[in-house]
Amino acid sequence: MAVLCRPAVAVPEHVVTLEETLALARAEHRGHPRLALALRLIESTGVRTRHIIRPVSRTLVQAGIGARHQVYVAEAKARIPAVVEEALDNAGVEARDIGMIVYVSCTGFTMPSMTAWMIDALGFRPDTRQLPIAQLGCAAGAAAINRAHDFCDARPSANVLVVACEFCSLCYQPTDDDVGDILCAGLFADAVGAVVVRGEGGLGIRLERNASHLVPGTEDWISYSVDDTGFHFRLDRRVPGTMAPVAPALRGLVERQHWDVSALDFYVVHAGGPRILEDLQRLLDVPRTAFRHSWATLAERGNIASVVVLDVLRRLFEEDSLPEAARGVIAAFGPGITAEMSVGTWRSRDPWPAAG
Amino acid sequence: MAVLCRPAVAVPEHVVTLEETLALARAEHRGHPRLALALRLIESTGVRTRHIIRPVSRTLVQAGIGARHQVYVAEAKARIPAVVEEALDNAGVEARDIGMIVYVSCTGFTMPSMTAWMIDALGFRPDTRQLPIAQLGCAAGAAAINRAHDFCDARPSANVLVVACEFCSLCYQPTDDDVGDILCAGLFADAVGAVVVRGEGGLGIRLERNASHLVPGTEDWISYSVDDTGFHFRLDRRVPGTMAPVAPALRGLVERQHWDVSALDFYVVHAGGPRILEDLQRLLDVPRTAFRHSWATLAERGNIASVVVLDVLRRLFEEDSLPEAARGVIAAFGPGITAEMSVGTWRSRDPWPAAG
Repeated sequence: MAVLCRPAVAVPEHVVTLEETLALARAEHRGHPRLALALRLIESTGVRTRHIIRPVSRTLVQAGIGARHQVYVAEAKARIPAVVEEALDNAGVEARDIGMIVYVSCTGFTMPSMTAWMIDALGFRPDTRQLPIAQLGCAAGAAAINRAHDFCDARPSANVLVVACEFCSLCYQPTDDDVGDILCAGLFADAVGAVVVRGEGGLGIRLERNASHLVPGTEDWISYSVDDTGFHFRLDRRVPGTMAPVAPALRGLVERQHWDVSALDFYVVHAGGPRILEDLQRLLDVPRTAFRHSWATLAERGNIASVVVLDVLRRLFEEDSLPEAARGVIAAFGPGITAEMSVGTWRSRDPWPAAG
Repeated sequence: MAVLCRPAVAVPEHVVTLEETLALARAEHRGHPRLALALRLIESTGVRTRHIIRPVSRTLVQAGIGARHQVYVAEAKARIPAVVEEALDNAGVEARDIGMIVYVSCTGFTMPSMTAWMIDALGFRPDTRQLPIAQLGCAAGAAAINRAHDFCDARPSANVLVVACEFCSLCYQPTDDDVGDILCAGLFADAVGAVVVRGEGGLGIRLERNASHLVPGTEDWISYSVDDTGFHFRLDRRVPGTMAPVAPALRGLVERQHWDVSALDFYVVHAGGPRILEDLQRLLDVPRTAFRHSWATLAERGNIASVVVLDVLRRLFEEDSLPEAARGVIAAFGPGITAEMSVGTWRSRDPWPAAG
């Protein structure tokens, strides 16, 4: 029985407000024929503040693949330890209790994975399994939880650490100036998150069942194109409309659990953008308040890719309003178009407390 | 009970012999002060032929990150379907029977992963789980088998398809001319492999137990460095000596199964290079014939990264000499330095044949 414990999430110290984002877009794309549309789209995201690892002035410079790679590695090594320590503390486990580390990041690519560094530097056992995932984009946080869940089902005494590290600001490409590119530059941001899935014990969300769903024919809708300046994030204008084919898959998963997707107690949903949240609310027939934590993450932190679900989860734990056995879903969406989903029950009491 | 079925492996049509490799090294690095050493090292690899996806003349041109990415995607899409079809046939399953695809490749990076394309193009179910791994290098083939094993332990009726696609020739960097770079250019090659792990039924290797081991303090020994011409493979000169700390981990895994690592019936070992194989033979106290399939892969195909273990496994199935319940190991080594290992028993008869 796998339990998803309380996560830890940290955002960097450099804050960009909506007003600053709009001013930057005006300055960087002066004279762009569709600038007014891009500005309206940025305003409509509802993102009020974002956090990034470097000052804006340095973020806007395209310093080349090599330089950005160096920044990625240095910033990841500086920011991951505290988040990991907090996640371990939250779960009541130590580094040596961890059987697998799932590391997800689509905004920096290293070989070896950061898992090798973590094992060496942060006191994990040399036999800790390493599962780095770089290609699932914003769905990767939920995918990591699902693979951790499976691992604990296979090895009931195991614990898995999930680490999500996204520095979307490092992927900024100044020469990309389609309306979609300008929008993305005003939507995405940076964060690091971690969470432990415990195979035995632990408080949080007891993971009951998980599923994945690929929307057919959408391979090119969210992608990296590659040229000699590196990876360029491409977001098709049809992406905001993808909840129509995703909602039935989510509904199906919930129904296999014999629950009603419209009447759950919590919804931990990827805040990809406002249209994603609005459509999914409508399609699942739930009120806006059901997605309140997703809206809060979007407004305060922007789209922080695979870290979004961990930040939404963090807010759910902070609110601390769920009764024992409350029912809910976790869902994130990314390239493919792929939805990674799970259903779980709230576990606020340890049924087998330690002997006194 | 997970069973690793008979794999399928394909190598490309362009063949490079040892003599051609030596001639190319002489021509490309004329006047290099340590050329004689590099040539001796290439000769000592024991690699007699390699297969690559394009003619040598085009392989030697550094065409930039974008152009190589295009070649990777086109060649992967052209070469994967036949190998996948053969692996499914070998396992007696169909695409719709697959619950997860593990796709491993450290020589091309796409987002979405090739798993999204495979699901769409090759008839897999939209709810097939996708696990792309790009950062485990040569250890990834064994890591994929281990994660497939875990998945089947968690879901006993599931089947997992592992696909390994490595075009090492696309990573050739003409300006890298350390002795180690020249050696690597004469060692690595291209191949595509696939194999099914069945949760129920199937003939092949019944997977009993798996493990991972990171050798402390070796994070920089096998790595990609990154600059504006892309990823540069770095192989530290200490790498060939890493079997000393790896062998005890492999021995420990085998002993947890109550077996003797020196007296197993089969050894499916990554053929990273001759020193790796020679040292491991000595450290495990086994004769050279125990690793005959690894030596054959190295000689005929070179180091084909994560595909090596699948090719060694293919030879084991082709030899077809193992008695029922024969005992053995699978082990591969990659960046980290990480060893991914498993122990299994040969299953040549289905204990529950279909009713007649």
